[in-house]
Amino acid sequence: MQTLLKLLRISFMTLPLLAMQQAKPTRVIFFGDSITQAGVGTKGYISQMKEILQSRGMGDQYELIGAGIGGNKIYDLYLRMEEDVLAKNPDVVFVYVGINDVWHKRTHGTGTDPDKYVKFYEAIIKKLQANNIKVILCTPSVIGEKTDYSNEQDGDLNYYASMIRDLSRKHNLTLVDLRKDFQEHLAANNADNKDRGVLTTDRVHLTEAGNKFLAEKMLDGLLKK
Amino acid sequence: MQTLLKLLRISFMTLPLLAMQQAKPTRVIFFGDSITQAGVGTKGYISQMKEILQSRGMGDQYELIGAGIGGNKIYDLYLRMEEDVLAKNPDVVFVYVGINDVWHKRTHGTGTDPDKYVKFYEAIIKKLQANNIKVILCTPSVIGEKTDYSNEQDGDLNYYASMIRDLSRKHNLTLVDLRKDFQEHLAANNADNKDRGVLTTDRVHLTEAGNKFLAEKMLDGLLKK
Amino acid sequence: MQTLLKLLRISFMTLPLLAMQQAKPTRVIFFGDSITQAGVGTKGYISQMKEILQSRGMGDQYELIGAGIGGNKIYDLYLRMEEDVLAKNPDVVFVYVGINDVWHKRTHGTGTDPDKYVKFYEAIIKKLQANNIKVILCTPSVIGEKTDYSNEQDGDLNYYASMIRDLSRKHNLTLVDLRKDFQEHLAANNADNKDRGVLTTDRVHLTEAGNKFLAEKMLDGLLKK
Amino acid sequence: MQTLLKLLRISFMTLPLLAMQQAKPTRVIFFGDSITQAGVGTKGYISQMKEILQSRGMGDQYELIGAGIGGNKIYDLYLRMEEDVLAKNPDVVFVYVGINDVWHKRTHGTGTDPDKYVKFYEAIIKKLQANNIKVILCTPSVIGEKTDYSNEQDGDLNYYASMIRDLSRKHNLTLVDLRKDFQEHLAANNADNKDRGVLTTDRVHLTEAGNKFLAEKMLDGLLKK
Repeated sequence: MQTLLKLLRISFMTLPLLAMQQAKPTRVIFFGDSITQAGVGTKGYISQMKEILQSRGMGDQYELIGAGIGGNKIYDLYLRMEEDVLAKNPDVVFVYVGINDVWHKRTHGTGTDPDKYVKFYEAIIKKLQANNIKVILCTPSVIGEKTDYSNEQDGDLNYYASMIRDLSRKHNLTLVDLRKDFQEHLAANNADNKDRGVLTTDRVHLTEAGNKFLAEKMLDGLLKK
Repeated sequence: MQTLLKLLRISFMTLPLLAMQQAKPTRVIFFGDSITQAGVGTKGYISQMKEILQSRGMGDQYELIGAGIGGNKIYDLYLRMEEDVLAKNPDVVFVYVGINDVWHKRTHGTGTDPDKYVKFYEAIIKKLQANNIKVILCTPSVIGEKTDYSNEQDGDLNYYASMIRDLSRKHNLTLVDLRKDFQEHLAANNADNKDRGVLTTDRVHLTEAGNKFLAEKMLDGLLKK
Repeated sequence: MQTLLKLLRISFMTLPLLAMQQAKPTRVIFFGDSITQAGVGTKGYISQMKEILQSRGMGDQYELIGAGIGGNKIYDLYLRMEEDVLAKNPDVVFVYVGINDVWHKRTHGTGTDPDKYVKFYEAIIKKLQANNIKVILCTPSVIGEKTDYSNEQDGDLNYYASMIRDLSRKHNLTLVDLRKDFQEHLAANNADNKDRGVLTTDRVHLTEAGNKFLAEKMLDGLLKK
Repeated sequence: MQTLLKLLRISFMTLPLLAMQQAKPTRVIFFGDSITQAGVGTKGYISQMKEILQSRGMGDQYELIGAGIGGNKIYDLYLRMEEDVLAKNPDVVFVYVGINDVWHKRTHGTGTDPDKYVKFYEAIIKKLQANNIKVILCTPSVIGEKTDYSNEQDGDLNYYASMIRDLSRKHNLTLVDLRKDFQEHLAANNADNKDRGVLTTDRVHLTEAGNKFLAEKMLDGLLKK
């Protein structure tokens, strides 16, 4: 009897500890470009995701880490993935890249060919999966907010978005279709057909509202079963 | 009786004049790029327009003249308009240019800035109108036939088309909205989302079917009251 | 005696005419882009040319007029030459354009093809000469001041300069070879191989020293017999 | 005893021969783009190197392996270096890449930014050196053979060549300065300032003479002490 009591006592004492141990938060890395680099700022999308999780009482369940560098394209992610992602042992990685791969064709002549975009993307997916990391894909949001399909690089951006959708199907991965989400939101909220100022400050980088919108969509992707 | 004879005499004298006047066909010049240059070929759109007019018994009412040169952009038209258009005293001029203004941004780095496109376009309209020529505007058809809005330059081409629509409204000119016409036709006839082969051979230049489709749309524009 | 009187009478009559003729300054228009637009500023090259002429006691002999507009390429000059040049009845016109024709290939995808550059250039020369205007050609200076031939667009700029040299030979026109002048000056004065800061503020637009250097070269061209 | 001495004598004589034979040939991989892909063809530069080595009686001392893929840029080499280079355990690797990194800026809008060119280049050098492989760097040859410095991308190509020279100094690596070699050869052998036809067929890819010239320069680099 004494032994039983003793065991029970131990159980009562260790249970919380076990619970705490089970409560080890899911480590999530956002792997991307300048939008993600800004995402860890005060009102950045990653910071806003943390706030939302907190407000829903889920703050302890997730550890959100930004790994964004301005100007990055798909091959830049590949080059630094060991150091900036794998070394941190994440459970989940959002890959959110593609805007510069398209945009820089026009601004610097240094975008990424579609076939190589896919090749590097698949190399990244493969390495992440080889490390048992859940991979979540994101389509590139916008380069210009006009809603009449006349943003200069809309066609090309749609093409890269379609390649990412194909990758998500092929590899059976969760997709956050930001391109679609942004376009739908703008169709409803940009009656003046402005090229910036609703979700972005400069056609690409996000306003606080843009970061909030992105935070919600990313969270949907994270919590999707 | 004398009066009747007098009237008859006048009739006999004036009839031939009237006939001659009626017989003088409306002179129409198609002012454009390689698509229009090819338009005077055996199955080109201008040749097909002539055939259609003939088949409707209107062959004598219109004289159709091609004035297209490969690679031309809006400013090339401006440079050669005295010689190739005004010198020929046309009654009607179709201005069909813009594809190279967009396309060559990607292929040669030598497209045309939007504001300058409009500036040269208006200079052409002004000169034609100063010569009492009816001006008909055409939006640029396609650079790529894909129907999911993912042809690389769709966005920019849509923008140039919208500027031409604005010009037609501003100057109260007949518009042949080829961009819209082609996109609607392709939406209905390109289920496989091919980038060429329906109306074009190479994403831009027209197949025989493409020339036929264009001929019909141009004729609608010509006969529009 | 009669002859003498006659001669005197002629002298009295023609003197004022001669005086007027001597007094009327040579009207010189500088036709170009943003460099020329800035040329009429306080320390701009045209203002500095005026000062130099003044200091040499030749201030009354020349009227220097700037006709530069930022972003202009060869075809922009053609479009506005009636209004901005011919309407002002100049005696001499400096054509100084070409930097944007090359530069904008990289920055906007809207440079000018070499063959069209020559075509518009010759159309301008022809119109100026038809109006008995002396034409002076200038090669484009620099896009980047590095002296080891590694400014990104050096090759293309050299090509456009060579086309202008060809035009000056073909049409027997005075040439101010700014490209050559600037490169020689930089070879001697830019030991650190800097891409800006010697004659330009931003690889293209001129410092005060750059404006002074340009003023001297332009003046040499103007006074060349 | 005599037999033993005899055997010993033979051993002493043959040992060096055996040693020479045991001198497993130096395995050399040429890591590059389409020029290297063509290099293994009948008259390709790698094939011609083999012939030259053979003719000098050094055919057994080197094993030359081509690892070139058309369209490759620096980051494409990085992506496939494990499989195509490291897996083959080479003793020496020539890295000959950069033409597409510059060229595709103009043709596809998909060149490589200078800073990223260096970053990927150093990542490749580091991995090769970590595997005890001797690394030989090559500057990019030509895009256009004109000798008056007016090939469109001369300036940019010179810049990338200079970055590679810097890398060879910084990492103390053998350099084959093809850019310099080609320019000197053309200066002496292209009096007509042709843009192709001396060492290249199309401004980039090599003629048989071009392959021969390249073979000699690469061999110099390989045999350099």
